[in-house]
Order: sequence, then C-alpha cells, then structure tokens
Amino acid sequence: MRKVFVIGIGAGDPDHLTVQAIKALNEVDVFFVVDKGDEKAELAAVRKEICRRYATAKPYRIVEVDDPARDRTDPAYGDAVRSWHDARTEQYAELIEHEIDDGKCGAFLAWGDPSLYDSILRILCELASRSTPVFEYEVVPGISSVQVLAAKHRIPLNEIAGSVAITTGRRLASSGLPEDFDHVVVMLDGNCAFTTVTDDVDIYWGAYLGTDDEILVSGRLRDVQSDIQRRRQRARDAKGWIMDTYVLRRRRLP
Amino acid sequence: MRKVFVIGIGAGDPDHLTVQAIKALNEVDVFFVVDKGDEKAELAAVRKEICRRYATAKPYRIVEVDDPARDRTDPAYGDAVRSWHDARTEQYAELIEHEIDDGKCGAFLAWGDPSLYDSILRILCELASRSTPVFEYEVVPGISSVQVLAAKHRIPLNEIAGSVAITTGRRLASSGLPEDFDHVVVMLDGNCAFTTVTDDVDIYWGAYLGTDDEILVSGRLRDVQSDIQRRRQRARDAKGWIMDTYVLRRRRLP
Repeated sequence: MRKVFVIGIGAGDPDHLTVQAIKALNEVDVFFVVDKGDEKAELAAVRKEICRRYATAKPYRIVEVDDPARDRTDPAYGDAVRSWHDARTEQYAELIEHEIDDGKCGAFLAWGDPSLYDSILRILCELASRSTPVFEYEVVPGISSVQVLAAKHRIPLNEIAGSVAITTGRRLASSGLPEDFDHVVVMLDGNCAFTTVTDDVDIYWGAYLGTDDEILVSGRLRDVQSDIQRRRQRARDAKGWIMDTYVLRRRRLP
Repeated sequence: MRKVFVIGIGAGDPDHLTVQAIKALNEVDVFFVVDKGDEKAELAAVRKEICRRYATAKPYRIVEVDDPARDRTDPAYGDAVRSWHDARTEQYAELIEHEIDDGKCGAFLAWGDPSLYDSILRILCELASRSTPVFEYEVVPGISSVQVLAAKHRIPLNEIAGSVAITTGRRLASSGLPEDFDHVVVMLDGNCAFTTVTDDVDIYWGAYLGTDDEILVSGRLRDVQSDIQRRRQRARDAKGWIMDTYVLRRRRLP
C-alpha cells in the first residue's frame, strides 16, 4: 500500500502552515505540484519554498503535474468541470501508482483548505472506492483564503446567531444575494460579480491574501466598487494573474 | 499603546496551531483564558498546554477570565446574547487597560477560527472605535472545527460549482434546510436539530474533534440519526459536556 496526504498549505504565506501539516510534510517521499495558467510559476515557487523550509526530515522528489485542459468556453460550467474532473481522475490514478513506490508516501499540497473548492478529495474518494485501491489517504486541514480575509479585515463572518453563505461569483451573478444570510462569502469570481449586486451591502475585499502583494479594500459597496475594479485590473495587468475573494455584509438599519 | 492578539488555536489538537500563531504566542506577555460551564477545566488545560508547548521565548502570565452570566432561558436568543455581549465588552475594556502594561502585549486565544461564532472581534472592534483607544489589535486565523470535521470525514464542503451554508442548530430547527444549498454546516447545536430535518440527506457528524475523545459518524440521516443521538448522550453523560458539529448534504438522484 501507498500513503497519500492531502495537505492544506494556507493561502500563500508559508507561516499559515500548521504543526500537523509540517509533521505530514516530513513523511512525504513525493510531492505532486499541480498549478496552471499564468500564476503557475509563482505558485509553484511558493510550494517549493514550503517544502524547502519545512520538509527537512528526509529526501523527497517534486513531480510537477500538468493540469488537463478545461473547456472554459463551455456555457454548461458544471459539465465542463465534470469532464475535466474525469480526465484528472485518471491522471492521478497513474501518478499515485507509478510515481509512489509501494510502502512510500506521496502528497498533494492544496491551497487554502482542501475541503473548499478543490477537486482533490472528490478524486481520491473515487479512486479509493475502486475495486483494488493501491493507497490509503489522509487529509490535513489548512487556513483558507476566507479566513485570512476575515482576519486581515478583523471581521466576524457571522452576525450574532446568524448564518453565513459561501458561494461563487458565477452563482452570485446568476441568483443574486441569497436571502436569509447577512454575510455572503464569494470565491472563484473572475468577473467582479459584486457589480451585479443592488442590495445595500458592505464589501470586504482582498487579493493575493497572505502574500507581499496583498491588497485590501472595504467599505459600502456602492462607494468602493469602482475602486476595487480599478485596483483589481491594475494588479492583474501588472502580475499577469489575480486571486481574490470577498465578503458581502448586509447593512443593518441604524 | 498596548498590543492585543486574537489567536485562533484550532479545534482542540495543539498540532492545529499555525506557524503564524506560534510566532504571535511568543510575543505575548499576558494570556486571557475565557472558558465557561462544565467544559471549563478541560478546555483551560488545553490552552495552558498550548502556551507551555509553544510560548517559550519569554515569561508570560495567564489571567483566567470569568464569563459574565448569560440568561439562557430568554426566548429572545439574539437579545440575550447582545446583553451578555455588552457586559463582556466592559469586562474586556477593564482587562486590556489594567492587566496589560503600556507597551506590552496581551492575547485572547480563540477556539477554532476567531471569525466564526466568537464574540471577541465584535468586542474589540467596538472598543477600538472608542474615542481614545488604548490598544491596537491583530487577528491570527485558526483551523475551525468545520475544517477538522471535513478533513476527518475526507469530504469536500461544496458540490462542484455549488454553495455552502454555515448555520446554527437553532436556525436549522426554526427555518429548515436552506434552499439552494447542497451542503449545510451546522454549529452550536445543543439539541440535535438534525432530527427536525425531513429532507433526504447524508450527515457527517463529529464530536470533540481533534482530541483523543473524537467521535465520527456518517451515513444517511434517517439511518444514523438515532445512533448519533445515543452516542452523543452517552459521551455527554460520561464527560459532563459535549462540543459537536456536522454537515448535512442533500442526496443526489442516482
């Protein structure tokens, strides 16, 4: 049998690593590094720095994994993700069987927390349920970008006794702000879906959270949204990519 | 000026501490330990163990803080919490001013992540906005029990392109499962509100997450709910207290 770790490595700052994650890193013989797009080089560098800094107990290999192409023009977003997911599943089955020797340990390093908007747990669950699994696996939680965002803005994510919604830019744009939620966290928003929101809300926005390039903006949405769009575009032009997330909070009546 | 840290310390396992949290712990002169109820002694012991293990750079004091009484019989839950919150705010103003010397550093250790169902950020925000604040403060995110739950069950918290709701037992019991959410995380549930759910869902339940007493149960809600109730009651009787959380996931059509 092989052992596979899925290790949450936080949002970008190597100081986000937990003691549990560092212990896991030190059991690993093979790290799989999966990055894609324009941010690839920069993100891969952070992962390698994390291995260099913390995985000091024994020698290890780093295997860079090419992400299967995803059809980003497909209007049926869920379908496109699912077919990409199937390709990735077969790719990971190969990696685990051929890159990890029997009795050895491999790891996937997940940005943020592996349970939020990451495919890896779904893939491993599927592989582990096949007739003769060749590996067992363990998940190590990590600090998500949502938590870094809340910490940097020093805000709670919930009202007293209230509920929190975590959703995507796509869903926000198509369905609007969910009812009954004072706080809505929005992830995976490539298109400034906050500009479609007409409710009176405050926004707490952050990009490149936990890194030297971090940008934070907060305020009443209607007052700051053009500023966020402008700064977002400028940063994206300068770096070639952007990762951002935000919280929308309904304004209470005075 | 004084410096105050709010440090997320994870769900119970000292290995949940991040490198960032450990660095912060080592700047602290005074730790405030606030616990209450039957779990008080056990939880205070975990916090002290965390200080002992990680805060090694300089001497520190631990100040145990009595929690103001909260009227748990008040049917207006939000109001009761708010008046308790006001009492706590004054108490913390006193603590910061009188227990931390000028130029020194204090810290509140928050279970899980400080941004989820914890009053401390709301209180500090209020104090810091008063006319002459005597302190500045910084928030360090931590691994929440939700993330430990997901990691132990090895489940994603979202469907592909889906949304996640985080709510309380009280809200689940009064309003039912939120529409448009495949995954609903329930926290602060003292009364097994899952028994009020009639939708066909899977449950992923966990108690004392990250500790030696951890219990995990998962399955189709209708099949496992009595088992969870039984085990929950037994554990609570044995230890005198329980902390649990769970995820409900709508079953997909085959």
